[in-house]
Amino acid sequence: MNDNCVLHECPVALLLIDVINDLEFHEGEKLVEHAMPMARHIAQLKREAKKSGIPCLYVNDNFGQWQSDFKHLVASCAGDEVRGAPIARELAPQQDDYFVLKPRHSGFFQTPLDLLLQNLRAKKLILCGLTTDSCVLFTANDAYLRGFEILVPADCCAAVAKHRHLGALGQMRRTLKADTTASAQIELEQLFEKNGSHD
Amino acid sequence: MNDNCVLHECPVALLLIDVINDLEFHEGEKLVEHAMPMARHIAQLKREAKKSGIPCLYVNDNFGQWQSDFKHLVASCAGDEVRGAPIARELAPQQDDYFVLKPRHSGFFQTPLDLLLQNLRAKKLILCGLTTDSCVLFTANDAYLRGFEILVPADCCAAVAKHRHLGALGQMRRTLKADTTASAQIELEQLFEKNGSHD
Amino acid sequence: MNDNCVLHECPVALLLIDVINDLEFHEGEKLVEHAMPMARHIAQLKREAKKSGIPCLYVNDNFGQWQSDFKHLVASCAGDEVRGAPIARELAPQQDDYFVLKPRHSGFFQTPLDLLLQNLRAKKLILCGLTTDSCVLFTANDAYLRGFEILVPADCCAAVAKHRHLGALGQMRRTLKADTTASAQIELEQLFEKNGSHD
Amino acid sequence: MNDNCVLHECPVALLLIDVINDLEFHEGEKLVEHAMPMARHIAQLKREAKKSGIPCLYVNDNFGQWQSDFKHLVASCAGDEVRGAPIARELAPQQDDYFVLKPRHSGFFQTPLDLLLQNLRAKKLILCGLTTDSCVLFTANDAYLRGFEILVPADCCAAVAKHRHLGALGQMRRTLKADTTASAQIELEQLFEKNGSHD
Repeated sequence: MNDNCVLHECPVALLLIDVINDLEFHEGEKLVEHAMPMARHIAQLKREAKKSGIPCLYVNDNFGQWQSDFKHLVASCAGDEVRGAPIARELAPQQDDYFVLKPRHSGFFQTPLDLLLQNLRAKKLILCGLTTDSCVLFTANDAYLRGFEILVPADCCAAVAKHRHLGALGQMRRTLKADTTASAQIELEQLFEKNGSHD
Repeated sequence: MNDNCVLHECPVALLLIDVINDLEFHEGEKLVEHAMPMARHIAQLKREAKKSGIPCLYVNDNFGQWQSDFKHLVASCAGDEVRGAPIARELAPQQDDYFVLKPRHSGFFQTPLDLLLQNLRAKKLILCGLTTDSCVLFTANDAYLRGFEILVPADCCAAVAKHRHLGALGQMRRTLKADTTASAQIELEQLFEKNGSHD
Repeated sequence: MNDNCVLHECPVALLLIDVINDLEFHEGEKLVEHAMPMARHIAQLKREAKKSGIPCLYVNDNFGQWQSDFKHLVASCAGDEVRGAPIARELAPQQDDYFVLKPRHSGFFQTPLDLLLQNLRAKKLILCGLTTDSCVLFTANDAYLRGFEILVPADCCAAVAKHRHLGALGQMRRTLKADTTASAQIELEQLFEKNGSHD
Repeated sequence: MNDNCVLHECPVALLLIDVINDLEFHEGEKLVEHAMPMARHIAQLKREAKKSGIPCLYVNDNFGQWQSDFKHLVASCAGDEVRGAPIARELAPQQDDYFVLKPRHSGFFQTPLDLLLQNLRAKKLILCGLTTDSCVLFTANDAYLRGFEILVPADCCAAVAKHRHLGALGQMRRTLKADTTASAQIELEQLFEKNGSHD
């Protein structure tokens, strides 16, 4: 087995956080309203990222299912009559996407995400997904601690309520120097130009 | 999705390290000789562990395959004409086994193993697998740092050469207070009696 | 040297975050206004905590001073004409206080805080200090990931601006289930009654 | 306070592990015999390292003394009638040395060592100190997991017994590709030439 399988090195990486999600929980009904337009924006951003050679990583909760794997999770969340299915289908992972299952809110806590990002030579992270004020914020904080530059396109994440979404975006702009420009305004090619401070 | 899926709590856990392995590397030919009898001993120990209600965890290298999952890995290692296939088949994971993919030598490094063991309430770990002086030793060291009691049954792990196997077992006995009694002599029920020092 | 020096075990711990601080940075002038009343509330809470046998931990930035230690840091921050000196003096550490130097925003990132809290058997953390929307929030997030119950008395932390203070408190109430009751209303003895979920 | 104090960047770092040690424990009497000549070799190597601009880091156990600091530890270990005093005096830290207190065997476990080494831009580590088959081995393993190149000069570390010392050196040569050449044969300037694989 090739221990050194070639990874697609790139200074930028796109992280899709908890988008594979059945949304079958309290307040999931409110969340899905905001999550549907979000999913379309992420899908568009992901297509452009792929064209630019930016690797896409699904950083997804394992939902306490320690005995199943990501494919099973995708299938289960995309099933009939599952609330989160339209989002899971819109954002179905492709063969060349990466994935990291996380057991808690932060994508970095007890996962190999940091090592994978190091191997990919990523310095700047575009964070998308659910929810702005929980797993996106936790992951953004931990990315900032590790020296990554952070983008959180405002239209590519969502929360249960507008004020929680906006509050968390403001928090990330102020404390993490995050760029929250909407996805349509991001020029991906420009992100390649200078590297972030992660080293 | 149930975030609180019930885990099988038990003060003892059985860890199978890198047993799903194609062994297609330098010195793999030498290793397979020692690994075949090892696999039979682990299989027997695993059957008894299951009878006693001890959870079994596959702690396995991802072999740099960041885009595939454990099922795919098992299938690929159990394939025809793969050197490690007899071992992967003998020790094929069952539905109620847990698994943790590790990106480096230690099962604890950038993985959720510590959290899973906490959730299982494990205090004593029985470490098995490949190789005694590499991934088993790395994982044993990290388990010891975290306060687990350690058993490494001498007949349930293997290395490329006998002296490396014995050297690492001695190292673990001396530095980690590891119990290296052969599997046939371990009385699993007795391990339940008093808890280890993990706190 | 006694490797097993007896720690003061207690289910509750009081954390003083970045209170030893020269405040000689941009916006430090605004921060000190909010930090002075905060320091008096923390000092009072700390006196009561000590009476109840609750261990007090200084979790303080090392401010990039990798070659000096905490005593030096305290002396330097309490010096004449240092902006943060009144706070550093009000909250001067005592002999039986613990301290953990952190290199980044979260008290848990690359520090022994988690191990110290485990050794102290702490399950509930009272977080105080500077600033509400930065190091206090980062530390609270990481505490929550690890299963601690969290209290952040609103009058015992401060930020550069009122709205940032209140925004972060709301964030912690919603996402971390943090209790932000003001310090005068906290009945410390009651915190001993039932343990949190950290185990 | 300057959050960006300039660190001395260098691709090589010298780590002195647990040399500040009272040796007042079981088997300390045996250890001190091997540790005295070791200390002289380390002192010589440290002098040459300083001349070459290589930063020196004391990576030392806190011995469970959570309420004291490194200076106190040095003073206490160098005191009269302390078994480890001759070593602590021979290797007394200087003002421009760095130090990291570790709570357990590995210098990387719950400490800021990894971040400090990243800030120093270190890629190759020269590990020295006590004991070869415990804290030196634990730290070497964790350094290897993180991609550092490792040197463990055979005459600059020591264990309770010769066979344990030699066994651990062999283990590190085989598993970690460690260079165990004696200190007199190391040409420090050559280590600057090509960088290690840490990234």
